[in-house]
Amino acid sequence: MRIAVAKESREGETRVALVPELVGKLTAQGYDVSVEPDAGRSALITDEQYAAAGARVDAGAVDGADALISVQPPSADHVARLRAGAVTISFLPVGQEQALITALRDARITSFAMELVPRISRAQSMDALSSQSLVSGYRCGIVAAGMLRSFFPLNMTAAGTVPPAQVVVLGAGVAGLQAIATAKRLGAVVKAYDVRAAAAEEIRSVGAQAIELDLETLEGSGGYAREMTDERAARQRELLTPYIAKADALITTAAVPGRTAPVLVSRHMVEQMGPGAVVVDLAADSGGNVEGVQAGAVTRIGHAQVWGGRNVPAQMPGPASRLYAQNVVNLLTLMTRTGEAGDQAILAPDFDDEIVTGACVTHAGVIHHEPTRTAIEGTTHE
Amino acid sequence: MRIAVAKESREGETRVALVPELVGKLTAQGYDVSVEPDAGRSALITDEQYAAAGARVDAGAVDGADALISVQPPSADHVARLRAGAVTISFLPVGQEQALITALRDARITSFAMELVPRISRAQSMDALSSQSLVSGYRCGIVAAGMLRSFFPLNMTAAGTVPPAQVVVLGAGVAGLQAIATAKRLGAVVKAYDVRAAAAEEIRSVGAQAIELDLETLEGSGGYAREMTDERAARQRELLTPYIAKADALITTAAVPGRTAPVLVSRHMVEQMGPGAVVVDLAADSGGNVEGVQAGAVTRIGHAQVWGGRNVPAQMPGPASRLYAQNVVNLLTLMTRTGEAGDQAILAPDFDDEIVTGACVTHAGVIHHEPTRTAIEGTTHE
Repeated sequence: MRIAVAKESREGETRVALVPELVGKLTAQGYDVSVEPDAGRSALITDEQYAAAGARVDAGAVDGADALISVQPPSADHVARLRAGAVTISFLPVGQEQALITALRDARITSFAMELVPRISRAQSMDALSSQSLVSGYRCGIVAAGMLRSFFPLNMTAAGTVPPAQVVVLGAGVAGLQAIATAKRLGAVVKAYDVRAAAAEEIRSVGAQAIELDLETLEGSGGYAREMTDERAARQRELLTPYIAKADALITTAAVPGRTAPVLVSRHMVEQMGPGAVVVDLAADSGGNVEGVQAGAVTRIGHAQVWGGRNVPAQMPGPASRLYAQNVVNLLTLMTRTGEAGDQAILAPDFDDEIVTGACVTHAGVIHHEPTRTAIEGTTHE
Repeated sequence: MRIAVAKESREGETRVALVPELVGKLTAQGYDVSVEPDAGRSALITDEQYAAAGARVDAGAVDGADALISVQPPSADHVARLRAGAVTISFLPVGQEQALITALRDARITSFAMELVPRISRAQSMDALSSQSLVSGYRCGIVAAGMLRSFFPLNMTAAGTVPPAQVVVLGAGVAGLQAIATAKRLGAVVKAYDVRAAAAEEIRSVGAQAIELDLETLEGSGGYAREMTDERAARQRELLTPYIAKADALITTAAVPGRTAPVLVSRHMVEQMGPGAVVVDLAADSGGNVEGVQAGAVTRIGHAQVWGGRNVPAQMPGPASRLYAQNVVNLLTLMTRTGEAGDQAILAPDFDDEIVTGACVTHAGVIHHEPTRTAIEGTTHE
């Protein structure tokens, strides 16, 4: 059986779904691996490196492949080149890709969405949302340190003391915790808030101060927060304002995949920040946690420079690709059975496995995650 | 007596020589302080903040002032507005400012160069080269982390381990040690080299590995390195090449004020670096430690992106100005005598004090640091 690695075609996507280090893991299981030319180029991986690892580099890699792996959803052209019964593995936001999902169904392709892998411990090693959030959380911390034209750390010098930067992080999931850890490493004073009660302990575990507001907590399932009422959101903004007003840097990371990000910070709140303040909004792709943010741009609000992240993991394509590829290979391995000859891999998803059913979008001519249904229940991933 | 604070006019200069927090230190000594409008603007300090601190904001601030303080050398216009016997304090690179120094002499102005303050312990709090190097060293570390599209820290995740970045720092003065400390804080593996034997201990004290080459060390005076022979320089480049070839990020900080920076890294050496490599050259303003670097630009050499720093402290104008201002105020305080009335400050440099004589460029119609002499002996600062 043959696995094809797509060259990504969506604008701004620099990652690749398989890296040479992991080609051997698939060939050892009995798969053939073919890679579209230049697939790794923007992640600084050459065709020669894939070939040396045992993959075939081939412009026709996708034609008739048994499985197609990619970071972004497969292109219409790629779908047209797959046979009925083939498998695709990629990110596939079901709320935004209705035409593609219909095409996958009609072509009788079995498609899996990495963001739908259930957040259970057995699937941790396949959790691409977490692995990519790790990258983007670190990146947000570094971007904030680079934009702030002042020190993150305390500096005691012969010419006096420079106080450390005050950093506020909103949202303490994987990305938020990484942003906190990065700012802490650099010596900033970090305060963080998350609507989930469990987050306070995690915030403290990475060395930051947990902001505690006199509000009910909002535990959702799958590690995500529940949605809040407008009234609670308004009260939360009010209570957070003094923290943000005092911050040199604000980093917001509250995003729920497939959903519009909650507006945690109003324009008014940003306007309370002082000269030189910086804001880094990781959620800009899904509307933003900060009112007025623009994905892929830096805008000025009051004194603050507001950076809106656009596909932030793609800003670190090397490590992001490596981690994503490992997630994909782990999912592929879960779905691999050994053939009768004993040396041939067979890609045979077990639809009694909750990971397989959880992540499956289309199979045998049926859509398993209706866009509308997922738009409502998308936070649970189950 | 009145001290005037210049609005900087040289392109790219964002710092200011006095900050509101320190106005009171001068007025308490009996000085009047006047500030040119918008002097602090690019350092995010408003005229209102100076006024609230007790300074007069005045377009004619420099006219007839007893002392003029600035970051860059005074402009010809400013010099023309000072009276004979007035004092100027600024950076004043004597090898590059011959026309200005002649004008200062002819106007019988007493001028001091901050970079000529002797590096003795009593003058530590006036050492603007060190304070600005602290800023630029930190900034170089942050710039390298931002340019490298990969993690500085080790990351152990459910999807595998991401190794830490390998960083090499050349030059371990104040800036180099700050760059090392910043990269270490972020979790990189850092190796560093300096031609001075004493540096190895300092490199280890900030957590990096000292690269030890089989070469004689070059202790100079004033904490700077002596110049090396062409033969030794070539051998050093040869011995450093394998370290640089393995580095993800290279940061070079070997600059001696007023001198052309030594070329520590040839184009050939940079070409040995791998895909995604980054080079940050703090010495680009004085020719660069890296062959082919351009100040104020990012150039591509081999696989590497090479960042050439231009007036790097000005990239963090807030803290750079605060530290510089403290250096200047400390020097002013050293030169202040109390008047007969007991409440009036008199700016009366004591020319028996080695700090005063060391830093003095022109006085009473005489140039004390001839450009030619300094070009030869500039490293000693005495």
